[in-house]
Amino acid sequence: MPEETGHAKVRAPGFHHFGIGVSHGDSMSFTLEQLAARFGGRIEGDPTRRVSSFAPLDQAGPEQLAFLANPKYLQQVESTRAGAVLITDEAVAELKGRGNVLAQHAFIVTPNPYAYFARVAQVFLAALEPPVESNIHPTAVIDSTARVAASAIIGPYVVIEAGAEIGENVRIDAHGFVGRGTKIGAGGRLHPRVTIYHGCTIGERVIVASGAVIGSDGFGFAPDFVGEGEQRTGEWVKIPQVGGVRIGADVEIGANTAIDRGAMADTVIEQGAKLDNLVQVAHNVRIGAYTVIAGCTGIAGSTTIGRHCMIGGAVGMAGHLKLADHVTVTGKSGVSKSLLKPGIYTSAFPAVEHGDWNRSAALLRNLHKLRDRIKALEANLQSKDVPE
Amino acid sequence: MPEETGHAKVRAPGFHHFGIGVSHGDSMSFTLEQLAARFGGRIEGDPTRRVSSFAPLDQAGPEQLAFLANPKYLQQVESTRAGAVLITDEAVAELKGRGNVLAQHAFIVTPNPYAYFARVAQVFLAALEPPVESNIHPTAVIDSTARVAASAIIGPYVVIEAGAEIGENVRIDAHGFVGRGTKIGAGGRLHPRVTIYHGCTIGERVIVASGAVIGSDGFGFAPDFVGEGEQRTGEWVKIPQVGGVRIGADVEIGANTAIDRGAMADTVIEQGAKLDNLVQVAHNVRIGAYTVIAGCTGIAGSTTIGRHCMIGGAVGMAGHLKLADHVTVTGKSGVSKSLLKPGIYTSAFPAVEHGDWNRSAALLRNLHKLRDRIKALEANLQSKDVPE
Amino acid sequence: MPEETGHAKVRAPGFHHFGIGVSHGDSMSFTLEQLAARFGGRIEGDPTRRVSSFAPLDQAGPEQLAFLANPKYLQQVESTRAGAVLITDEAVAELKGRGNVLAQHAFIVTPNPYAYFARVAQVFLAALEPPVESNIHPTAVIDSTARVAASAIIGPYVVIEAGAEIGENVRIDAHGFVGRGTKIGAGGRLHPRVTIYHGCTIGERVIVASGAVIGSDGFGFAPDFVGEGEQRTGEWVKIPQVGGVRIGADVEIGANTAIDRGAMADTVIEQGAKLDNLVQVAHNVRIGAYTVIAGCTGIAGSTTIGRHCMIGGAVGMAGHLKLADHVTVTGKSGVSKSLLKPGIYTSAFPAVEHGDWNRSAALLRNLHKLRDRIKALEANLQSKDVPE
Repeated sequence: MPEETGHAKVRAPGFHHFGIGVSHGDSMSFTLEQLAARFGGRIEGDPTRRVSSFAPLDQAGPEQLAFLANPKYLQQVESTRAGAVLITDEAVAELKGRGNVLAQHAFIVTPNPYAYFARVAQVFLAALEPPVESNIHPTAVIDSTARVAASAIIGPYVVIEAGAEIGENVRIDAHGFVGRGTKIGAGGRLHPRVTIYHGCTIGERVIVASGAVIGSDGFGFAPDFVGEGEQRTGEWVKIPQVGGVRIGADVEIGANTAIDRGAMADTVIEQGAKLDNLVQVAHNVRIGAYTVIAGCTGIAGSTTIGRHCMIGGAVGMAGHLKLADHVTVTGKSGVSKSLLKPGIYTSAFPAVEHGDWNRSAALLRNLHKLRDRIKALEANLQSKDVPE
Repeated sequence: MPEETGHAKVRAPGFHHFGIGVSHGDSMSFTLEQLAARFGGRIEGDPTRRVSSFAPLDQAGPEQLAFLANPKYLQQVESTRAGAVLITDEAVAELKGRGNVLAQHAFIVTPNPYAYFARVAQVFLAALEPPVESNIHPTAVIDSTARVAASAIIGPYVVIEAGAEIGENVRIDAHGFVGRGTKIGAGGRLHPRVTIYHGCTIGERVIVASGAVIGSDGFGFAPDFVGEGEQRTGEWVKIPQVGGVRIGADVEIGANTAIDRGAMADTVIEQGAKLDNLVQVAHNVRIGAYTVIAGCTGIAGSTTIGRHCMIGGAVGMAGHLKLADHVTVTGKSGVSKSLLKPGIYTSAFPAVEHGDWNRSAALLRNLHKLRDRIKALEANLQSKDVPE
Repeated sequence: MPEETGHAKVRAPGFHHFGIGVSHGDSMSFTLEQLAARFGGRIEGDPTRRVSSFAPLDQAGPEQLAFLANPKYLQQVESTRAGAVLITDEAVAELKGRGNVLAQHAFIVTPNPYAYFARVAQVFLAALEPPVESNIHPTAVIDSTARVAASAIIGPYVVIEAGAEIGENVRIDAHGFVGRGTKIGAGGRLHPRVTIYHGCTIGERVIVASGAVIGSDGFGFAPDFVGEGEQRTGEWVKIPQVGGVRIGADVEIGANTAIDRGAMADTVIEQGAKLDNLVQVAHNVRIGAYTVIAGCTGIAGSTTIGRHCMIGGAVGMAGHLKLADHVTVTGKSGVSKSLLKPGIYTSAFPAVEHGDWNRSAALLRNLHKLRDRIKALEANLQSKDVPE
């Protein structure tokens, strides 16, 4: 789940990946007033201070931006060497309350330092992306009837079929496939080896990770069998899947996730939804705007999930269900009935010591016997209550 | 599961994907007598009526074919504008019983309108597939010792290794890989980016969705460790996986599904079985004919599943088990023992409100205490029963 | 799990895959003294006997090597036609105890015949790999700043980006992708269609199966919403993922498995760990050395798993947990709390007949009512105990 980004636990080593051992675009730097002009926030301290990258509070240097999201790290602000810190009004007040001289500090005060950090960091990182020699790699196979925007970047061995439309500033990395008539909205990013079938519509700024498959046939078959047991003959007859997949703006799709096309209507993922890795979305599912779904979760056909839901990892949902807006399903739960009210729903047991578990499991299987013994006791007692 | 195709809920929009914004093969049209000649069924009404596509009853026009699978939609037949309706004898009788004049209608009467529809729709859709310029795309890398049938279609960047055999009318889309010595039976369809390792045998008319991997090494290692705890040294030694994968005719494999090759014998999927997306089939598993397995289900090594089984989504099965024919396992269940009798098996709890669940879960852990209290009560009462 | 290799159930057919219908490198043969010199063990019988392949005891011929791992197959040794048998001291003693003349037999005596077999079999199979025409396929796209060892084999349509380093004897099969600055250690094998993002470090002799994705962005978003219900506006802001993935020596990664890069620090898989197919490893997870994880298991962000753990299939783990060394989690269990002591942990129910299950499940939901009835009985009885 998004809460579990492990962000609070980050350590420095990762930062060597900034360089990644190859020279590419120089890193960008900003003064605090430039940042505030672009991303908002109130500056406390020297507005001309300049930052060129970011790091956690306890590791940041004078040219780095840090942030305080969790109040319990407040004293790290007092000791940080960061050039500037993204912070809330409350935290600044607290620091002043402690009588700290904040002279050596510079802050950008914002109600959401974590989100502010994320937006700035994206800009820093974009500047580090290596330049691309050619917009369209010579090995890309692009049908003459496909329309590819001039600013789009198409990597090696990408295949784009007839009538496909690739918007401005879209980047499709190596081994990508875009089927006939599929539209990729402006600013989209398909990481290496993303496969999108024909007749799908992908909104603006959609990010798809490697191995994801969008628009594969839904799992639909008409049973056509006669006879029983050994005599049974016949087959499952494939139902043509003629719907498509429609994905809204700002959606992110994880690695090796599979999203099937609809049987006749479309499978739909609304704007701002985020799907993790290895998620299965069956045909005619609808996922509401800003809903997040963690890894290994599977959603069966024609289920509709509301807006702003949070679905944990390894959840299984039956088909033809309806989940209201603002529903949370905890990880590893199974959903076999509609959940029509906002709230948190669960059906997962935490693993315990094997012997203890087996004892409980055995008792569960025989729960009806315990119930019967209680009934007997009640009857027995009642009889005793009869006045002589 | 197949029952959950969401088909009863289809809406029109999907149909714009028929055109998919690019011109390709003209759509085909049939008279009812042509359909009956090819697919069977009894005609009621004008046998010369012509249909060229299909749609749901409530949306079909005079040149479209519709079907009635579910009696509860019977009155849609009375009001439909469809050129013809696939329908059962019972439904026609019912309509006549209602005294409806069926003059304006034309029917093809068949015991299984849904399956009949599926077969006709496949023909309509095949006619809509765009023509291919060249049978073998110039970028395909095909070993000189591989045999590719003249009628096969090989897409861009496909790699076919030594000794592979590609049957008549097979279509392998972009980024496909067929390892050395692997055979693909006639009429097969590998969607873009399907990888099949060496030494596998794929039957006729098998359909494989994008991202599927067939023939990867099974998960087999010999433990070779000495010492305990901190002193423990050694390694897991890889067991060579020299079996293959054998897949029968008319099998369908979903997106990003993984099927491992056998350790020494083959992993086997029998004819007519259907596997959904993100299914894991471990080495030496055998899946019986016409068995269907929904998405995200995992089957551990050497387990054998019978014929005509229905395995729900997100099911986990231990290894070395045996499932009888006609076994159904409901979604999200775990199977750790063999299921030797036909029937429906379950071990999944539906998610409930979080607080309620936690209360039940806590009690479950302490079930043995409840049992002890009942015992105490019984003993206590018995003592009271001793006659004074 | 490794125990479930199905090896004890192997059958002959698999062996036709040795030939795989195409001529390639002649098979290698060894005398027993050559094997003992290379792999250790004590020879009983003629040290000059020569074996050129392997087979199960009941199927091996005079030029084949067999092994006895499970004492219950001891009598198969008496009747085997195998040229030589890998066996333990105990088993040989047992055979002699039975007064069997072992004249016709030849043995290599080793404490771990199964592991010994695995090592020999790897050598036999390597000899069967077909020769490669060119080390680097002409269609490979390799950046001029990438360093590829002279002995490395790069297949068709492989893409290697700037600054990547490919070690000696690495083999990258068709459709592989190695991102900028990523290092692949000596002796590694990437099967067809493996995608590794930029800034990752893969140790020596690592094997990655088809479809695996390593280094995709972790699932990290900062919530930036204001207002409630219908009024709610805002978005999930992507947290840049600037950590990498570090994989130790001798790790094996299964088909279609996904391993995310870290948010700032790296995601780490230590040496000798083995991951099965369709496993999800979220950002900043650490998996200890020699730990094995079966298929369809998902591990949420920042969880740390110890060394020598065995995680079953279809397990779900929450984020930010710690598992001690030598922890076993049985298949299909959910882990939502840290497991700080070695041992076996479970939370999975085995599927039972549907009706029985529903009865137990209903009772579980009402367990608190049973508890209340017990309370009432206890109170009632106590009152009766008051002396009159």
